[in-house]
Amino acid sequence: MAENNKDEKLIGIVMGSTSDWDVMKEAAKMCRDFGVSFEARALSAHRTPDELGEWIISMEKRGCKAFIAGAGGAAHLAGVVASHTILPIFGVPIPSKYMKGLDSLLATVQMPKGIPVSTLAIGEAGAANAALAVIAVLAINDDDLKKKLIAFREKQSEKVRKATLPELD
Amino acid sequence: MAENNKDEKLIGIVMGSTSDWDVMKEAAKMCRDFGVSFEARALSAHRTPDELGEWIISMEKRGCKAFIAGAGGAAHLAGVVASHTILPIFGVPIPSKYMKGLDSLLATVQMPKGIPVSTLAIGEAGAANAALAVIAVLAINDDDLKKKLIAFREKQSEKVRKATLPELD
Amino acid sequence: MAENNKDEKLIGIVMGSTSDWDVMKEAAKMCRDFGVSFEARALSAHRTPDELGEWIISMEKRGCKAFIAGAGGAAHLAGVVASHTILPIFGVPIPSKYMKGLDSLLATVQMPKGIPVSTLAIGEAGAANAALAVIAVLAINDDDLKKKLIAFREKQSEKVRKATLPELD
Amino acid sequence: MAENNKDEKLIGIVMGSTSDWDVMKEAAKMCRDFGVSFEARALSAHRTPDELGEWIISMEKRGCKAFIAGAGGAAHLAGVVASHTILPIFGVPIPSKYMKGLDSLLATVQMPKGIPVSTLAIGEAGAANAALAVIAVLAINDDDLKKKLIAFREKQSEKVRKATLPELD
Amino acid sequence: MAENNKDEKLIGIVMGSTSDWDVMKEAAKMCRDFGVSFEARALSAHRTPDELGEWIISMEKRGCKAFIAGAGGAAHLAGVVASHTILPIFGVPIPSKYMKGLDSLLATVQMPKGIPVSTLAIGEAGAANAALAVIAVLAINDDDLKKKLIAFREKQSEKVRKATLPELD
Amino acid sequence: MAENNKDEKLIGIVMGSTSDWDVMKEAAKMCRDFGVSFEARALSAHRTPDELGEWIISMEKRGCKAFIAGAGGAAHLAGVVASHTILPIFGVPIPSKYMKGLDSLLATVQMPKGIPVSTLAIGEAGAANAALAVIAVLAINDDDLKKKLIAFREKQSEKVRKATLPELD
Amino acid sequence: MAENNKDEKLIGIVMGSTSDWDVMKEAAKMCRDFGVSFEARALSAHRTPDELGEWIISMEKRGCKAFIAGAGGAAHLAGVVASHTILPIFGVPIPSKYMKGLDSLLATVQMPKGIPVSTLAIGEAGAANAALAVIAVLAINDDDLKKKLIAFREKQSEKVRKATLPELD
Amino acid sequence: MAENNKDEKLIGIVMGSTSDWDVMKEAAKMCRDFGVSFEARALSAHRTPDELGEWIISMEKRGCKAFIAGAGGAAHLAGVVASHTILPIFGVPIPSKYMKGLDSLLATVQMPKGIPVSTLAIGEAGAANAALAVIAVLAINDDDLKKKLIAFREKQSEKVRKATLPELD
Repeated sequence: MAENNKDEKLIGIVMGSTSDWDVMKEAAKMCRDFGVSFEARALSAHRTPDELGEWIISMEKRGCKAFIAGAGGAAHLAGVVASHTILPIFGVPIPSKYMKGLDSLLATVQMPKGIPVSTLAIGEAGAANAALAVIAVLAINDDDLKKKLIAFREKQSEKVRKATLPELD
Repeated sequence: MAENNKDEKLIGIVMGSTSDWDVMKEAAKMCRDFGVSFEARALSAHRTPDELGEWIISMEKRGCKAFIAGAGGAAHLAGVVASHTILPIFGVPIPSKYMKGLDSLLATVQMPKGIPVSTLAIGEAGAANAALAVIAVLAINDDDLKKKLIAFREKQSEKVRKATLPELD
Repeated sequence: MAENNKDEKLIGIVMGSTSDWDVMKEAAKMCRDFGVSFEARALSAHRTPDELGEWIISMEKRGCKAFIAGAGGAAHLAGVVASHTILPIFGVPIPSKYMKGLDSLLATVQMPKGIPVSTLAIGEAGAANAALAVIAVLAINDDDLKKKLIAFREKQSEKVRKATLPELD
Repeated sequence: MAENNKDEKLIGIVMGSTSDWDVMKEAAKMCRDFGVSFEARALSAHRTPDELGEWIISMEKRGCKAFIAGAGGAAHLAGVVASHTILPIFGVPIPSKYMKGLDSLLATVQMPKGIPVSTLAIGEAGAANAALAVIAVLAINDDDLKKKLIAFREKQSEKVRKATLPELD
Repeated sequence: MAENNKDEKLIGIVMGSTSDWDVMKEAAKMCRDFGVSFEARALSAHRTPDELGEWIISMEKRGCKAFIAGAGGAAHLAGVVASHTILPIFGVPIPSKYMKGLDSLLATVQMPKGIPVSTLAIGEAGAANAALAVIAVLAINDDDLKKKLIAFREKQSEKVRKATLPELD
Repeated sequence: MAENNKDEKLIGIVMGSTSDWDVMKEAAKMCRDFGVSFEARALSAHRTPDELGEWIISMEKRGCKAFIAGAGGAAHLAGVVASHTILPIFGVPIPSKYMKGLDSLLATVQMPKGIPVSTLAIGEAGAANAALAVIAVLAINDDDLKKKLIAFREKQSEKVRKATLPELD
Repeated sequence: MAENNKDEKLIGIVMGSTSDWDVMKEAAKMCRDFGVSFEARALSAHRTPDELGEWIISMEKRGCKAFIAGAGGAAHLAGVVASHTILPIFGVPIPSKYMKGLDSLLATVQMPKGIPVSTLAIGEAGAANAALAVIAVLAINDDDLKKKLIAFREKQSEKVRKATLPELD
Repeated sequence: MAENNKDEKLIGIVMGSTSDWDVMKEAAKMCRDFGVSFEARALSAHRTPDELGEWIISMEKRGCKAFIAGAGGAAHLAGVVASHTILPIFGVPIPSKYMKGLDSLLATVQMPKGIPVSTLAIGEAGAANAALAVIAVLAINDDDLKKKLIAFREKQSEKVRKATLPELD
């Protein structure tokens, strides 16, 4: 279990397999960098449906405000999480071996009316952005976090402003 | 609940929404035509996960040997059924409004190692074939059904043999 | 301007063209049904970038907590909204005439690291779900809305439970 | 000829080329691990249609209950096997050099009404799952195999439960 | 059986189902217009493999020089014809109900090294062009046919030259 | 030949078939509305390559500054025009019957290094935009046209500004 | 210029760039192995249209019976060859850097009615098969070549028959 | 800032990130080789929208005649540039990590009616061709540049003419 050390866990990060961690750790890092508590778990919609349900309940009890779910291929995890809770769910399509995540994207985003999964880009960028999306949600009622988010965006812009292209060889 | 009248229910047919019935009734018809008992239900992996689980257990108690699951878009139903039972699962990708079932196909077939969903073609042909696939499974130990299946295949071949193309106008 | 009559506007709904309204009104209806104030506007990222920026600022002043942006084809609207605000952005891919929204989906969801657009399904289901996603966000700190959302989900489940499949003809 | 040492061959595994073995051996390994007899052959629908037909008849005589067929590109093998037998056929789309198996998937799964090929995921996961799907079929009437399958699934779940994510660096 | 009235049959046209005739008759018409003898049959690679093989032999005996094979979805017909003969095979991808022939195209064209199927465009244009491709083949050793083909091409060019665009309204 | 009545022809509009006119007339209309002289022709890269080459030369003599070429399917027209002239070429992918223009888009835009075809969107929007792109090119050295283009853009923005969404029913 | 040493050149092999040779040499090797004379050239539809036309005429004078054309991306070469001759044209989609030949395939195969390009698989297999397709065409009137083709096919089948799968490790 | 040393800057080259430079430098090199002044900048539509707008105005003041914009994924940059200026915009789809630029292509080319982005091929070829397209635009009124462009094309053709294929091994 990857986590940072607070009793409260504002964000639940779940992935279908430990092999998804390489991508999903970008979400965890972003939470850590913003000082937002989270708990990250590898739990499978198909192999450990009960544990998944129990973890969701446990997370809700510990103050969880939103879930980030990453899975690849026939990526059902985010949808299954959505069936257990009314908290906002953000989905991350994990790149698959042969289809490179097109399958993961469609299996995550094309949810039926009534059960939304808010989906980010395929892969690392999507994982980082899922965390940023939840942080934006939490920032609605957290002025401190809002300031951090504004600072992050400003720093990001500053980095672009200062970037220089190399000379042509 | 669509069914045919036997106490035992050899095949469970489930779909995510009653709107899938237009496609999935092809599976039901094929079961009926072969005289194989079935029960068909609309149950959602996301909206009624508990009822889905209960129905699967109930079906197993009533002698169910295999499930056919049809869903569209981010089609998680077959995978979720697979997480509840070790019986064989056959998936039918329902054509979706805009992507025409490419999303449904990938979300059904691209299951991770360990939890198979045996997937048929998109739409009506796939629904009919899912029933035929289960019938082939049941026929392994049912000589009567085997004969019917051979006869069906023969009749099908005969139909092709007798087909005539129209004259050119 | 489509809106419901409250001074405060919790949700900003924006689309690239009035022709997107047929899809995006599903978001507006969902807001209305939940009694959540919103303002819906057709504003173009390309044709009226200044008005878009001004509207976003105006919405923020009026208490807006999140934006829903729907666009088709080279769907840049949600991303451009994201460049103007740190509030959460939810994107709806509008089906396009020839590519049926695959272009809209990719142009909405594949945002670079740092600027998330949380994307829902292509078309009407996605528009309704974008509203539900924002409602889930608002419900984090609004017990009344939380109850409504639980009731909506329960009603939805009940509808599935009561659904009956027609007889085979 | 890869096989395990029993006279009876419950499962026939066939692939279009010896180069498909890297993927298809996952099916063979799964059979071996479950102690289910199988025979694996490289036979081509296009180059050795007669041998293919003869092998299918021979397999049926030796007690074969189901076939697993893997092929890539214009993957006709599973369909051609299906034309020779009424036994259940499970198809494995082999990743192709340039299209990465999208061609193989569509050429395997999109069978016409009347001749089902139950298709698994592209590549190694699909090969392993094809074996698991046949094992699930055989387990319907084999309590010993059923227990093994339940144990396999439980072990798989246990592995997920015990998995731990690494610390953030 | 659609044919034109010569004893010799230079071209064999085969399709998987009579429902493919709407597309494949474009090949038949082109043959007729060029005065090239043909025989058209609906025969299935999966349902009537033996009849298909027999028809191919029979066609070869009657002087057949090339085959045109049209099929949809998991389109195996052209490849199976190719396994029975060394005569040139031209494949026509028939548009499928949901995938519009992308599946048919890939299942026809992506043949493995050693067994070519020369593939034309999806649908009516492809069917007509398959006939033209065979006519070009036959014209290599038939000066009369060569003249007809040159005349056809010239007439076609003339039609383009004479075409006028309507006035703008 | 569709044209407007000036001796000089600043823009050459060419399409592979008169059936493309329904789409390509949007380019012609835009030219007319801006008062920019053009000549529109249906000429085929494959059926009338010589006439195509002659027309290009003739257009250059009459002062043509840029070409707009629209074609569908294996859309070679724009590339073939590019092989005849160094003037700027703008390509319009015409929607094809079954692939809806994805083939036309790729066949137009994916030109090799050295021979650019500047490509617009599939269909009517792309045709209109091709004309606007050429108008922007001509406006670089034509202040009158520049004013018209600014006015067009402003009018377009004004239309968005004034657009009102209907009431929810 | 790659060629084998006969005065007559039965097959013309052309590709858009020398970088296509890695793929297209499979066609040349197959011709060489069958003892069929050929001439292979890199000539561009866009950069050297005149030389391309002259080479086609020159080839026809030297007895060329069919052309094989390979190109990648917006692959216009085969279609442009088809506009210069009534001889049969076989197209080979060369894998492109980013789209892996899906663009090349569609740009080659989706030819309009009247101008066929008979298309083989993407890449090396397609190049080899293009040569085999032309050899099958030439074999119609060449009993020696027919025997060689039968022997090739038999050898190929024999190779499959003798292939053995390795032991499971 | 990459540039070449003239006060006037005829072409503005902009990309979403410095990581796009590997692709976009092909545009810069082509400008340099033709002696056409340019300025290249990394500026983000999402992170630095204001700086982007200011740069566009600044470029226009310094004589810029056209912009080249390259971006990947949900590639909004070219469209956002188009919203700031009436100068011609040429878009370059940058290959994305998992989708290889199909997303970038669709997000760049599928612009709505009224705001054209003239789009080139995915990747390096597209970047070089974007520069060539602008050079063709500038050459309309610059005889010196026209001569250079003719010479470039001729040199390119000469290179093809002189290219020789290696011997078969």
